[in-house]
Amino acid sequence: MKVGDTHYRSIWRNGETGAVEIIDQRWLPHKFTIATLETLDEFATAIRDMWVRGAPLIGATAAYGVACQMARDPSDAALGEAFDTLHATRPTAVNLRWALEDMRNVLSRLPEGDRAEAAFLRADRIADEDVETNRLIGVHGLEVIREIAAKKAPGEAVNILTHCNAGWLATVDWGTATSPMYHAQEAGIPIHVWVDETRPRNQGAQLTAWEMVGAGIPHHLIVDNAGGHLMQHGQVDLVITGTDRTTASGDVCNKIGTYLKALAAHDNSVPFYVALPSSTIDWRVHDGVAEIPIEERSRREVTHVYGRDENGETRFVQISPDGTEGGNPAFDVTPARLVTGLITERGIATPSREGLLDLFPEQRDAG
Amino acid sequence: MKVGDTHYRSIWRNGETGAVEIIDQRWLPHKFTIATLETLDEFATAIRDMWVRGAPLIGATAAYGVACQMARDPSDAALGEAFDTLHATRPTAVNLRWALEDMRNVLSRLPEGDRAEAAFLRADRIADEDVETNRLIGVHGLEVIREIAAKKAPGEAVNILTHCNAGWLATVDWGTATSPMYHAQEAGIPIHVWVDETRPRNQGAQLTAWEMVGAGIPHHLIVDNAGGHLMQHGQVDLVITGTDRTTASGDVCNKIGTYLKALAAHDNSVPFYVALPSSTIDWRVHDGVAEIPIEERSRREVTHVYGRDENGETRFVQISPDGTEGGNPAFDVTPARLVTGLITERGIATPSREGLLDLFPEQRDAG
Repeated sequence: MKVGDTHYRSIWRNGETGAVEIIDQRWLPHKFTIATLETLDEFATAIRDMWVRGAPLIGATAAYGVACQMARDPSDAALGEAFDTLHATRPTAVNLRWALEDMRNVLSRLPEGDRAEAAFLRADRIADEDVETNRLIGVHGLEVIREIAAKKAPGEAVNILTHCNAGWLATVDWGTATSPMYHAQEAGIPIHVWVDETRPRNQGAQLTAWEMVGAGIPHHLIVDNAGGHLMQHGQVDLVITGTDRTTASGDVCNKIGTYLKALAAHDNSVPFYVALPSSTIDWRVHDGVAEIPIEERSRREVTHVYGRDENGETRFVQISPDGTEGGNPAFDVTPARLVTGLITERGIATPSREGLLDLFPEQRDAG
Repeated sequence: MKVGDTHYRSIWRNGETGAVEIIDQRWLPHKFTIATLETLDEFATAIRDMWVRGAPLIGATAAYGVACQMARDPSDAALGEAFDTLHATRPTAVNLRWALEDMRNVLSRLPEGDRAEAAFLRADRIADEDVETNRLIGVHGLEVIREIAAKKAPGEAVNILTHCNAGWLATVDWGTATSPMYHAQEAGIPIHVWVDETRPRNQGAQLTAWEMVGAGIPHHLIVDNAGGHLMQHGQVDLVITGTDRTTASGDVCNKIGTYLKALAAHDNSVPFYVALPSSTIDWRVHDGVAEIPIEERSRREVTHVYGRDENGETRFVQISPDGTEGGNPAFDVTPARLVTGLITERGIATPSREGLLDLFPEQRDAG
């Protein structure tokens, strides 16, 4: 999407050199930095140290990492090394494993001399398919926004609240939760976005707000505490979030705090939608609260905050007293009963086993 | 309560000099600073610029401010000046107005020569009464904790979640929401406190966590997003918060985000208690969501965070991109239907008009 007047994806091949380039997201929103990735080590570092983040973007980055390795050394040993090294960077990321397995399946069958070119084409395809999936999520989500806009006075903005960053920076382009917003903007429907800060890592403040500035979408940053009050007072027309993992029953495991917004939406009859590529649906899991283990992340994320000081220097500051430890569950599960609809690339599903199977009938046979 | 090995109140008269001293709370938790207040200007600055905060402490500080003024100039003109100057510092603070009116009523009847001594005695009494009110809140709240502890294995901690700072730093001593915790500690009941960070001003991280460190109460700082997840997984036995204003029907207007925690507590059958001196009950207001205007505070509180950098310097850092504005409602209203009980100095009231009138029958006649 837009950064200034230029359209960017979050990962791309340089048109002149062919090199793989990314936005080094660690320095957003304070510095816009493009990094070139060449060696396997560089790709591994970029994923592990969160220069890139977001499940779809991690998958695409890993695919390009394999391709670069094949250009240097197309042997089976090098392919295996790329798989193992990249997989170890974020071992629980489902999309990462999926992309690596896809690349290995395609490449291991080919003669070594054909692997480099095939690998880049396959990585391009993974990236392009992610863009198309997210575009379709936007097309379907747009209809929800359009319906709400139709009930408003002409020119009155539809107020959308979002949590964390399920934006184009987490995917290759469009984003998931943000794709309907960009589509609404393109369709000329006025929107205003409440951007949840999303402590502890502040992805809302750092990434989603930055995306909104880039796109010129009217928005306000709010603390994670504020959404319930805004809903009580009719200032939120709908909520759209992303999800890291969706159960076969429609429970949604997403960034910590999503559940609290879903409760508030339910209490105030505000529609609560979750946007997702169907690749995040885990058809083997049914009860999200009981079955999904929640990662406990570094305590330092709670006790320290990243920002830019009055001299323009980026730094971490400690907000709490010495002697206080942080507790840091990274995700929570929103039960399907609190979700209005799941916006997928195939359309909007009712958040239930039957609702999902209606859209993905091939899973009936798989089950 | 305890700071290191010493017992402090949040405001006191120096035993040797008689001067009024406070903890300058602006620098907590990073620096423990005691300030002496002498002139009317100094008292006004301390209240306006939040060296002291919390309704009860603001009231006591204003009372001492009037007393210091009377020691310098006991005339009617000086009394009026003290009233006006101090009232203007936080014009919406109910306790501030109440304390100033109380002082004026007592002093205006006295001959000028008797005013200074009477003023200090009256201010002492306001402070002492606040301490006693909060002590009684603790005595009643302790019973709730004791009942929960009785159902646990011996030695197993009662997990209490609190939001914002309704601690001794917001009162003269004990605090409101924290008073039951201190009483449980004194009674030998093991507790563990989940301290909500409480963005945007981080009173949980800066003040409540600091109080817990001082008291040696086991605790973890968590982001405001985390409480719902912890409740889903049985890690919270009860919630206790304070309140800035309570309606005659038992609705609770407290720091932004309280409502979200109340929703999560309700969804998970976790008891949700609110601790309050009866002076915060506004008997004229019934529907909190509809009737209580919510203060919109500075946008900078949302876009900037205060902390201590790696060199030990305290500073603000900007967390969001240039071009993003913050939205900052400071309070929200938790409807009485989500509240388990209101812990007052007279006992625990059912959160309803009848429940409150049972404890405060004199209000039946007033109504």
